[in-house]
Amino acid sequence: MNWKPNRDSNLTIHEQIVDWVKSRIERSDWTVGTKLPTQRQLADRFNVNRSTVQLALDELKADGLIESKVGSGVFVANNSWKMLLDKAQLNWQQHIESSIHKPNYHTIQLINEHEQMDHIIRLGTGELSPELLPTKQLEQSLKEISLEPKAIGYSPPQGSEKLRGVLCKYLKNKGIETSLDNILIVSGSLQALQLIAIGLLEEGSVVFHEQPSYLNSIHSFQSVGMRMISIPRDSLLTDSLRENKKKRQSVLYCIPTLHNPTGKSWSMKEKKTLYDTCKELQIPIIEDDVYHELLFEETSPPIKSLDTSGQVLYIGSVSKTLSPGLRIGWIVAPSPVIGRLADIKMQTDYGSSAFSQEIVAQWISSGRYEMHLATLREQLKRRAEYVEEILEQHFRKIATWKKSEGGFYIWLRFHEPIVNKALFLKLLHHNVLINPGYIYEPKDLHHIRLSYAYASMRALEEGLHTLLKLIK
Amino acid sequence: MNWKPNRDSNLTIHEQIVDWVKSRIERSDWTVGTKLPTQRQLADRFNVNRSTVQLALDELKADGLIESKVGSGVFVANNSWKMLLDKAQLNWQQHIESSIHKPNYHTIQLINEHEQMDHIIRLGTGELSPELLPTKQLEQSLKEISLEPKAIGYSPPQGSEKLRGVLCKYLKNKGIETSLDNILIVSGSLQALQLIAIGLLEEGSVVFHEQPSYLNSIHSFQSVGMRMISIPRDSLLTDSLRENKKKRQSVLYCIPTLHNPTGKSWSMKEKKTLYDTCKELQIPIIEDDVYHELLFEETSPPIKSLDTSGQVLYIGSVSKTLSPGLRIGWIVAPSPVIGRLADIKMQTDYGSSAFSQEIVAQWISSGRYEMHLATLREQLKRRAEYVEEILEQHFRKIATWKKSEGGFYIWLRFHEPIVNKALFLKLLHHNVLINPGYIYEPKDLHHIRLSYAYASMRALEEGLHTLLKLIK
Repeated sequence: MNWKPNRDSNLTIHEQIVDWVKSRIERSDWTVGTKLPTQRQLADRFNVNRSTVQLALDELKADGLIESKVGSGVFVANNSWKMLLDKAQLNWQQHIESSIHKPNYHTIQLINEHEQMDHIIRLGTGELSPELLPTKQLEQSLKEISLEPKAIGYSPPQGSEKLRGVLCKYLKNKGIETSLDNILIVSGSLQALQLIAIGLLEEGSVVFHEQPSYLNSIHSFQSVGMRMISIPRDSLLTDSLRENKKKRQSVLYCIPTLHNPTGKSWSMKEKKTLYDTCKELQIPIIEDDVYHELLFEETSPPIKSLDTSGQVLYIGSVSKTLSPGLRIGWIVAPSPVIGRLADIKMQTDYGSSAFSQEIVAQWISSGRYEMHLATLREQLKRRAEYVEEILEQHFRKIATWKKSEGGFYIWLRFHEPIVNKALFLKLLHHNVLINPGYIYEPKDLHHIRLSYAYASMRALEEGLHTLLKLIK
Repeated sequence: MNWKPNRDSNLTIHEQIVDWVKSRIERSDWTVGTKLPTQRQLADRFNVNRSTVQLALDELKADGLIESKVGSGVFVANNSWKMLLDKAQLNWQQHIESSIHKPNYHTIQLINEHEQMDHIIRLGTGELSPELLPTKQLEQSLKEISLEPKAIGYSPPQGSEKLRGVLCKYLKNKGIETSLDNILIVSGSLQALQLIAIGLLEEGSVVFHEQPSYLNSIHSFQSVGMRMISIPRDSLLTDSLRENKKKRQSVLYCIPTLHNPTGKSWSMKEKKTLYDTCKELQIPIIEDDVYHELLFEETSPPIKSLDTSGQVLYIGSVSKTLSPGLRIGWIVAPSPVIGRLADIKMQTDYGSSAFSQEIVAQWISSGRYEMHLATLREQLKRRAEYVEEILEQHFRKIATWKKSEGGFYIWLRFHEPIVNKALFLKLLHHNVLINPGYIYEPKDLHHIRLSYAYASMRALEEGLHTLLKLIK
């Protein structure tokens, strides 16, 4: 979609748009039943007025090439292809709509889409800013890599032995004793959840998770028929799990350190209580620990360090700390579990990038990773304080928040329930992208997940002021 | 599983094995219900006699730590944990057995497992030999990469724009006109199939494929409830598709160039006939074209080059040609289809390795890839001729085959139906790993997929002689 109308052309802008749409239909890119982008989206992309787009669409409708369906949008008409070229054509839209996997929520699709646009200020992005990524050091480290032919073939089902060896040592510092057989390398923690969902749980299993929860913003468990039960944090420690425990298989998903989206961490005592309860109830724990390295002050080791019963599936990653582009994470679990998940990974994508694995092994084993983390924590802390100061100055009367203890996020709570989709869209129209609380807890209209990690300081300030202006 | 008994220890070998098994149970690695490897597997791994393993297992059974279940193997006993440490413990085996995704077939699990062992001669592996991989050139090219901070963050849903741009040009040479919006970067062709299965087909859709078929050796469609109908190659061109076409959605999977496992290619006329039939019947075509670059003599362009109706989902990859460790492939399709598949990929693994994408873009755009391919084809041709000469000398009386036209495989057909699981296991016991025909067509007991691409020339000769000896 990089095409734009040419203002020096002999054709008018709307004629050019008509031709462009026709050409997409002609070359079978937009097949019968394809839903067109909205007028606003097209206007934004072409950088023209909506009225110009409307003029073009009206002409195409009059020609019978596209048609409106009330309430659902504008589509390539059933006879369009016949009219243009007189040929039969597949209806891909029908295929898409009847297929198995759920689409992302619309708000999340919009987030994914707008995160690619340079002019958008991203106030909620769960990703390190380009300026925080160690790009030059990574480039340098590529020069130092020496490859073995065996290392760039298909990797063993569990992933590179070298990287697993390095991780064994690394995890020891976090109080986790493990061995080569107990580690599976994955392409990031999202894939870890996907593999667990299809490889360890029967359909209809219960997935307990904290409320609000990152799990609500993705589909890993929902799309394969699991039943989600979200429980507020404090109730998890009392009798909620016991009361809700079903006859069915169940599992608890949690982020005990720097929770996404709230930023909270459990104390060691709380972790112990949770572990003991789950052990007694025989509920396996999925411990998502991808933010741990970003604690401004180290607090307590992961739940996995307490695990004497093989009950905890531990997930780590370098996506939040080194580079998401590497797509490298890991699961630590009993070896039959790892064997099973490795078998499924082999059926899904035959393993993760050998090059990425090599880079991560090199960074961790050389100590470069730890050094980078120390700097990164400092930088994130500075950013957190900067945002907190802006909040202090301008948001004190309308919202509350907790001082960040690390990671990326401030869970900003507005006194009034104003964070709805309308606000999300209004902000987007002003080029500000937020992660609204309702993607983490559908009923929540009070929160925004602010991220101080992505946008530049200047953009953060500008975005927060736009937010303030639109709220008032 | 790298542990081996220490022959200089004060303990006997079998005592060491007993201790080792106990320690795995104690540290919750083998939880209750875990199935132990077979005696033979343990003996192989420990490099000891089976009788020693048996002695150890007998002792563990007598202690009540493990138990045999007739016909299904030896398992960690229900009370083992209590006996060792007196604690409750999760039964992971139960979780694994009741979960959603099918395990790989046993023969394929054995293949995956033994492909990791250096002493095994691999006669069927669908992978380039380490000596054919351009390891040093890849290492060199890493030194030349300059990274942009944006390039190592999360990539756009469809994958690196740079790589997609490079592919547009590259595919033009194959007669495929496409654009940025029509390409999705994936982590190899297996992932492409996975995404198509869950993103474009309704449950119970019919997947037509050639008989024998690579699809039978993987589970992408079967594991999500598709109905597989395999049709012999020649019948596909007559009325078989028409007769078998159901009311249900259906799709045709094919490898028109250097088919896996048979090595055959369709002529341009046959491709045209197939395309026209599918167009008339409105059956989308999945064209798996990952071996095309390995044709010894270029024949005809892909079916996709004929596609005027947006009917063909085209799959390419560098796994067979450059390095499987990169985990990079691509799908070319109409943009609504690509948008849909990209959305699902974002829900699965948030994109492929940015580093791998960068490397592939660099190799293709610099022309290095084409140069490498020219050399590679020469080397593969030499290997094919070498193997064909051995076959000519020793297999003429018992088998038939077709001279290879490219790629990796010779589809060796024995006059007698001797290629069963017993032969597979017997060969494995002699350290020779084959890909038996029955993993591509369950009823087939005549074929072996010979690969001249992986093992060294010497190993190929040795392996073929072992095969000959065991058959006779």
